[in-house]
Amino acid sequence: MNELRLIEKIRRLSGSSLIGDDCAVLRPKAGRDLLVTTDLCVENVHFRRETHTGFDAGWKCLARGLSDIAAMGGAPRWCFVSLALAPWTTAKYVRDFYRGLLRLAEEHKVTLSGGDVTRAAVLACDIVVIGEVAAGKALTRSGAQPGDNIYVSGLLGRAAANKYRERAEPRVALGRRLLGKATACMDLSDGLAMDLHRLCVESGVAAELDAPVPVFPGATLEQALSGGEDYELLFTSPHVLPFARIGRIVAGKAGFVRLSGKRLRPRGWDPIG
Amino acid sequence: MNELRLIEKIRRLSGSSLIGDDCAVLRPKAGRDLLVTTDLCVENVHFRRETHTGFDAGWKCLARGLSDIAAMGGAPRWCFVSLALAPWTTAKYVRDFYRGLLRLAEEHKVTLSGGDVTRAAVLACDIVVIGEVAAGKALTRSGAQPGDNIYVSGLLGRAAANKYRERAEPRVALGRRLLGKATACMDLSDGLAMDLHRLCVESGVAAELDAPVPVFPGATLEQALSGGEDYELLFTSPHVLPFARIGRIVAGKAGFVRLSGKRLRPRGWDPIG
Repeated sequence: MNELRLIEKIRRLSGSSLIGDDCAVLRPKAGRDLLVTTDLCVENVHFRRETHTGFDAGWKCLARGLSDIAAMGGAPRWCFVSLALAPWTTAKYVRDFYRGLLRLAEEHKVTLSGGDVTRAAVLACDIVVIGEVAAGKALTRSGAQPGDNIYVSGLLGRAAANKYRERAEPRVALGRRLLGKATACMDLSDGLAMDLHRLCVESGVAAELDAPVPVFPGATLEQALSGGEDYELLFTSPHVLPFARIGRIVAGKAGFVRLSGKRLRPRGWDPIG
Repeated sequence: MNELRLIEKIRRLSGSSLIGDDCAVLRPKAGRDLLVTTDLCVENVHFRRETHTGFDAGWKCLARGLSDIAAMGGAPRWCFVSLALAPWTTAKYVRDFYRGLLRLAEEHKVTLSGGDVTRAAVLACDIVVIGEVAAGKALTRSGAQPGDNIYVSGLLGRAAANKYRERAEPRVALGRRLLGKATACMDLSDGLAMDLHRLCVESGVAAELDAPVPVFPGATLEQALSGGEDYELLFTSPHVLPFARIGRIVAGKAGFVRLSGKRLRPRGWDPIG
C-alpha cells in the first residue's frame, strides 16, 4: 500500500471532497468562535492491538477529541486524522480504523476534512477536532466560584473496570445544554483526582468533595477517582442541576481538593509518566 | 518530568495564555476562509536524533505546516503541537524543540495555541497550522488549465543535497502574492515528479516539462526531481511571471507528466513506503 493509494481509499471511505489540497478550506458561521483540540493516541499507551480492533482504536481516537469539544459546549464540525502506520498495520486494520472513526463522526455530523499519513515504529494517531460555539460563550475551566456545586455527568471508573476497551460516548449534547448554566466545565479524561485539581488550579479555587462519588458497578473507588478515560463531564454551577452533585467549590489554595477530610492528591493516569 | 510540569514549561516558553482548557478558542476575522493543515513528523522517518538537534526538529515540524498554508496563499495565524516523547527524550531536547518551533512561529506571527503531549517508542510530532485567506480565494491544486505555464519558486534538490538537515524557509509571503495570479499551486514536499503528478491529477490535465528544471548546485537532477522536502512552491499561471518556468500544462491523461519526450513517473519519497 503506498501513500497515493491509501489517500484514495480514505477519500472513498469518507465521501469527502475536501481531501486533496495542501490544506482543508473551512468556512465557519459568522459570529462563532472556533474550538480546536488535538489528541495524540499511541499504540501501547492509549490502545493495544491485542485488545483493540481497528474499529475500536479509530472510535477511541475521535471520541477523545469530541469529548474536548463537549467540555467547552461546542458543536463539533470538522475532524482531521494524522496516522502513522506501524510495520504490523494491515490494510484491513487501517480500513477498520477509519470505519470506527467515521461511524462516530457520522453520529455527530462531523466531516473528516483532511490529515496526514506516514509510518512509525508504533501506530500513532493524532486527531484534530474543530467545533463552533457562540462567540464568547465557550465553557472553560477557569470560571468556578466558591459556593458553586460540583457535578459529574455519569458513573465513574467504568473505563478502568472494563479495561479501557469500551466505546465511550462523548457528552456533546450535554456540553451544549450546559452553556449559560455551568460556570466551569471539563471532560474527565485522566480521572477525577487529576482533572478536578486542574479545574481548581485554572479557577484559582479549592474543592470539597462532600457527597458520594458515583462509582460504576464493579469499579473500585480508586478506579473512579483516578482510572481515567471515562469521558464524562465535570462541571460547576451555582444552580441545582439534575446531575450527580459530588461537592462544592470553596475558597482556598488553588487546586487543593479535599475528600473525607483529607487531601485528594492529583494522582491519575499520566500520559508521559 | 510529568505532564503537568511539562505543560507549565511550554506555557512559559510560548507566552501563550490559551493553553489550559480542553480546546483553544479562536476568533477568525469575518469574511475569511480558514485553512487547516496537519503534518505528522516521526523520528527516523522525517528526522533523526543523530543529525537533527531538538531545535532543528521543532523548526522542521512547523516549517512543513507553514509550507502547506503558503501553498494555498494563506496567512498562518495559529499552530498546535502534539508531541509523543520517546524514552531517550531529555528535558533539554524538548526545550530545544519548542525553541526551534517558536523561533519560526515568531517570524511568521503564528501563535502556539495548544496541543497534546504523551509518550511513544519513538519521538513523534503532529503539527496543525491554521491560517486565513479571503473567502473563496484560496489557491488549490485543481485549477491548472491547458496552456498555463508551470513555475517553481526556487532551486530544487537542495534538501536532498544537504542530507535534509537544513532549515527550510516556507514561502508564505510568495504564496500570498500568487493569489489571483496562479491558477493552481502546491508546495514541493515529496519532489517534483510526485507533486506535479498530483497537481495534474487534481486539475484533470497533463504536463510537459519543456524547459530546464533549476537544480541546486551540488544536487543531481534525480534529487531535484524526487529528493523531496525542498518546500518551494509549484504553481501554474497563464501569465508570464518572474520565476523559473519549467514547462506547460497540456490536455491529456490526468496526471501524465512528460520530461524530455518520456513519461516522468510519480516516484519520489513515499512517507509510508
